[in-house]
Amino acid sequence: MPGEFDFIRWIQTQQQTTALVQLPAGDDLAVLRWNAAELLLAGVDQVLDGVHFDSTVHGPRLIGQKAMNRSLSDCAAMACLPAAALATVALPIGTPMDYAQQLYLGMKQAADAFDCQIVGGDVASWTGRLLLTVTVLGRSAGFRPITRAGARPGDMIFVTGPLGGSLRGRHMTFTPRITEGLRIGKTGCATAMIDLSDGLSSDLGHICQASGVGAVIEALRVPVHPDATLGDSAGMTPLDHALHDGEDYELLFTGPADAFRDFICLGRITAEKGIFLQQDGVCRPLEPRGWQHRF
Amino acid sequence: MPGEFDFIRWIQTQQQTTALVQLPAGDDLAVLRWNAAELLLAGVDQVLDGVHFDSTVHGPRLIGQKAMNRSLSDCAAMACLPAAALATVALPIGTPMDYAQQLYLGMKQAADAFDCQIVGGDVASWTGRLLLTVTVLGRSAGFRPITRAGARPGDMIFVTGPLGGSLRGRHMTFTPRITEGLRIGKTGCATAMIDLSDGLSSDLGHICQASGVGAVIEALRVPVHPDATLGDSAGMTPLDHALHDGEDYELLFTGPADAFRDFICLGRITAEKGIFLQQDGVCRPLEPRGWQHRF
Repeated sequence: MPGEFDFIRWIQTQQQTTALVQLPAGDDLAVLRWNAAELLLAGVDQVLDGVHFDSTVHGPRLIGQKAMNRSLSDCAAMACLPAAALATVALPIGTPMDYAQQLYLGMKQAADAFDCQIVGGDVASWTGRLLLTVTVLGRSAGFRPITRAGARPGDMIFVTGPLGGSLRGRHMTFTPRITEGLRIGKTGCATAMIDLSDGLSSDLGHICQASGVGAVIEALRVPVHPDATLGDSAGMTPLDHALHDGEDYELLFTGPADAFRDFICLGRITAEKGIFLQQDGVCRPLEPRGWQHRF
Repeated sequence: MPGEFDFIRWIQTQQQTTALVQLPAGDDLAVLRWNAAELLLAGVDQVLDGVHFDSTVHGPRLIGQKAMNRSLSDCAAMACLPAAALATVALPIGTPMDYAQQLYLGMKQAADAFDCQIVGGDVASWTGRLLLTVTVLGRSAGFRPITRAGARPGDMIFVTGPLGGSLRGRHMTFTPRITEGLRIGKTGCATAMIDLSDGLSSDLGHICQASGVGAVIEALRVPVHPDATLGDSAGMTPLDHALHDGEDYELLFTGPADAFRDFICLGRITAEKGIFLQQDGVCRPLEPRGWQHRF
């Protein structure tokens, strides 16, 4: 029956002090020295057993990795650099120490890939199911973060990769689009950006709502992932999957047509509110059908 | 069946932009402008149904309040100012919207008491039990944060209030000792500090381990809370409760005797390792029996 303090002592062996991290995990709070020229961006995401992963199917390394990558994806969406992360884990009683360590190592591996250090956290055990959270602290990368609120009529809509069918596995193994987000931000031309976690139809809705605009998506230009083309019992077409499935973790962004020639353009921003799908010469409303937690 | 987006829209009506908070909750990440002269302190804590609260007994307002106050207590322990917080909540499916709002309002009320703004978060629903996390971002208050690692032989050990029996109710309703923590920090004399969440015997152990020292507690000087004096089936004396119960959320700190005359002095730091209890003329080892999550 391993204990919290053994686990924390083990985690401390994985920690280091840097110019940023004056005092790593192990005290009441981590102490960071933030570069004065940089904004601080902060967000938190959680992954829940039975919702974002299935602990009877997915191993702890992969679960930890996904928990971290979901939060890193928010950094990608703002075009900022991840700098530090804090994690919590609620472990079912009876979890072996090795399992807890694998969760941590999965998170660390994902964070290390983008020079992000885990600087704090909290561990608890309970009769409930496995739940992880990751808080990410990001720094601006020499330019303003890109929010959801700047899309303008006439902007084109772009995406960093093909969509749909991520539940077949990519939702656990995706790479957060940090590199792409920074490239997009560096142009200074992107007007709004979001990562596709809820699904294209929902997340485009978030951009349109925050920006006070509408959008038209061209069906023929939507990049459909091969995973979305396989048979499905729900009666959804591959295009439906690309439009509505969540957890693609590609970036959806807006800006002038000529600034982003090496990304996929799938529509345009309009002054008229509402989101429409242009298909076979007709333009019909595209209802958001992506993921939303209902309680 | 309310949805995540309705809840988030309601939360956004509670948000505001300030000099610190350039972009509040609602985008992928909050954007903060950190004062260049200040360190950034960061930590996260979680509260779990059946462990830190009992949702069949405690109302949502109180649960939210405790979740926030636990994290604020970590700021108190470092003698820093809480500046911003991020929260997550995992809701059992079927939770009414009003219940979710009360959780938020409980957190907000606790944060507002110390000018701390909730700048981001995440909400999800599942078949599991209620779980909240609060990440707190603190700023240094004009002096170095106080860690667990500076206690020196000859220092005296102080506490900000009486201990024991917090499970009778105080563990839900305590006030984080931010004001006291800042007063202690401002003296420039405190050498180590921690908040009493696991229990005196455990938390003093954390200070001693981090500082590489030992300690002697004088039984007669331990301030026993009236809650600890009531009858108990576990065969523990009131002193036992004061020494080992967790969740007092008072501050335990070390420093020279004459610098903290208005706090309770209950022992001294020694060069010899180990923690001892001096009682009736004998000095015997004091084993840590405070709370530890075992999984």
